[in-house]
Amino acid sequence: MSLIVQKYGGTSVGSIELIERVAGKVIATKEQGHQVVVVVSAMSGETNRLVGLANEIQGDAPRGRELDVLLSTGEQVTIALLAMALQKRGCAAVSSTGRQLGILTDNKFNKARIKSINGARLKKSLDEGYVVVVAGFQGVDEEGNITTLGRGGSDTTAVALAAAVEADECQIYTDVDGVYTTDPRVEPNARRLERITFEEMLEMASLGSKVLQIRAVEFAGKYDVPIRVLSTFDEGPGTLITFEEDVVEEPLVSGIAFNRDEAQLTVKGVPDRPGVAAHILGPIAEENIEVDMIVQNVGSDGTTDFTFTVHRNDYNKGLLVLEDTLKNIGGGQVGGDPHIVKLSLVGVGMRSHAGIASRMFTALAQEKINIRMISTSEIKISVVIEEKYLELGVRVLHEAFELGQENEEKNSG
Amino acid sequence: MSLIVQKYGGTSVGSIELIERVAGKVIATKEQGHQVVVVVSAMSGETNRLVGLANEIQGDAPRGRELDVLLSTGEQVTIALLAMALQKRGCAAVSSTGRQLGILTDNKFNKARIKSINGARLKKSLDEGYVVVVAGFQGVDEEGNITTLGRGGSDTTAVALAAAVEADECQIYTDVDGVYTTDPRVEPNARRLERITFEEMLEMASLGSKVLQIRAVEFAGKYDVPIRVLSTFDEGPGTLITFEEDVVEEPLVSGIAFNRDEAQLTVKGVPDRPGVAAHILGPIAEENIEVDMIVQNVGSDGTTDFTFTVHRNDYNKGLLVLEDTLKNIGGGQVGGDPHIVKLSLVGVGMRSHAGIASRMFTALAQEKINIRMISTSEIKISVVIEEKYLELGVRVLHEAFELGQENEEKNSG
Repeated sequence: MSLIVQKYGGTSVGSIELIERVAGKVIATKEQGHQVVVVVSAMSGETNRLVGLANEIQGDAPRGRELDVLLSTGEQVTIALLAMALQKRGCAAVSSTGRQLGILTDNKFNKARIKSINGARLKKSLDEGYVVVVAGFQGVDEEGNITTLGRGGSDTTAVALAAAVEADECQIYTDVDGVYTTDPRVEPNARRLERITFEEMLEMASLGSKVLQIRAVEFAGKYDVPIRVLSTFDEGPGTLITFEEDVVEEPLVSGIAFNRDEAQLTVKGVPDRPGVAAHILGPIAEENIEVDMIVQNVGSDGTTDFTFTVHRNDYNKGLLVLEDTLKNIGGGQVGGDPHIVKLSLVGVGMRSHAGIASRMFTALAQEKINIRMISTSEIKISVVIEEKYLELGVRVLHEAFELGQENEEKNSG
Repeated sequence: MSLIVQKYGGTSVGSIELIERVAGKVIATKEQGHQVVVVVSAMSGETNRLVGLANEIQGDAPRGRELDVLLSTGEQVTIALLAMALQKRGCAAVSSTGRQLGILTDNKFNKARIKSINGARLKKSLDEGYVVVVAGFQGVDEEGNITTLGRGGSDTTAVALAAAVEADECQIYTDVDGVYTTDPRVEPNARRLERITFEEMLEMASLGSKVLQIRAVEFAGKYDVPIRVLSTFDEGPGTLITFEEDVVEEPLVSGIAFNRDEAQLTVKGVPDRPGVAAHILGPIAEENIEVDMIVQNVGSDGTTDFTFTVHRNDYNKGLLVLEDTLKNIGGGQVGGDPHIVKLSLVGVGMRSHAGIASRMFTALAQEKINIRMISTSEIKISVVIEEKYLELGVRVLHEAFELGQENEEKNSG
């Protein structure tokens, strides 16, 4: 008997009909002899409806404690309905909020992080024969305040629960049937990967392949939880996310990720002295603006330029913060561009192969796509380009690295 | 400085606009120098929407633990939105679920009763200067399961909180501006009462005057909590619910209550031996069917007839239970009628005045309204009549006891 954690996102539980369908899938798993924990999101549209109500009162960006009280109801509705659907089919099931399972988080409302989970409570219910239906995305802080993990946090809940009870597999059901070499809507020739390493997945997720939340992948890697991404709507093996050592043959490049949601902020001509980066980024972090890429060039004339990317929603706030900062530093100009995208090649194979970067830059140059920023890690190369070149850039790179279905053989490293 | 508990029902918080309006009323109270606790219901329509979702899965009567998990989200949405609306106006406010305030109930899902409340937590937040916005209708049992008090339970929450923190007044805001001599939709000449005793209110509520829940009134009486019923939409003093000794002049009859939601169940020809009533009502109670009026006539031929009324929704279930019971008892026939209503005269003044009953029966007889059952207490007389005579019966009695606006003077006792 295995212990399986399944997670169904908002589009998988978006109607009573779909909830009934999920109940069928859960029971099929249970009838194979497994213990099953099901983590669910709010019904699709529900979170937006609730945010809409809050916006009517507080304008664009209601934040803080009360938003979490509001949003956490979305998942609570789904757990009750799914538990009822299971019970109707004769399956012993019990719902559980984040609080009831002892999902303890820090007290950063709207963006809380899980600190610990009381796995014993969950184990007890499983051992009593129940399917446990858990509200994703939520927890409580040490004072019992309701917290949420931010959008997509249900994936993190699923992986964290899987880690807490040492589940054999954490299955993430979504509306795609696995992880692809790139977004099939942009490149129709994109191919589903049988497996992908945690490190690659981490890069893919953070770079905007929306299949899995980055926090979830980090958690999974840290606690050795095998994740499988599957489709709620189609049968199929999905994509297994593994540790590198499991993989025998490694392609050079696994996929191409991109992110449309970024904006670029630039500070020019600031005094080039130790600590200037911290001076610039400190106030940004204090405003809870998450920074992605950071590039600083070698300075000249005693000044330096400093560029970084943030979520597009944080662009205007970022500009204001930087202007304040420069007043304190004494010097420099603030600039930026909200119309940029990030494009990234990801692959553990590129570690041991030179020439990937130049092949990438050459392919883009041939199409006259100008590269604004470059940032590299061991298993990825990211470039920032103008937004209008996104689709062209993805297709050019997909072809240059022979990632398409007809090229599968050639790309093996 | 007084401590005021205010309760706003679903129609008072049925839209963002109305929630903003409630925020204004709360702040006006706060600015008069009072500490304020606000108890709210789900936005009107929300509970029905949630029940509808459950019904899609489980059919007519989904019950049990998961229904409470589902329904309790309705109030949780309202507390978050109202707290946001207060904060927007610069008023320090914090929302609280039933669990967060330590509202402990028994574990009778869907119909739980409050066992205790942690008043210290509420007091602490009030002393820190917060308006505390509390989700009505909900609590947790000793194992941390979410429970609900049944429809209208928000009134009970408000009164129980008022008792727990020894509030100076518990104000129930609703869509009517007080307690009337009878339903103004049935008798346009109905008059708002300045004050009414707890005992009368208890009878009025249980008999179907929907202004206040009976459990709430019981609680208020037990813990000496003064309640005032007011309109959310109009200014005015409402109706104060007092203890009898406060009332100087007492009218004979305060009002006429009625209940359309009842059905009559009859058992005929059962063996007339000790314990037979318990044998009949025991299984009814086990099925959680609440019984209202009970009438047993003196028997003859060693058998007796036994009639009682239940909520109309429980009529069919009641019939089935009775048929089962009679098989065990050995004898008797089951009958009933779902098309009956109960009409009641209520007034503490009738205690010391004979002749009220005969005046009532005479008035009804003059209109050829047949009386099926009669039941009396110290301060009320109830009759069961055919449903079609309801409006006629109310008007006849309202006139017979001179309860209308032009008769106010004459009726003083």
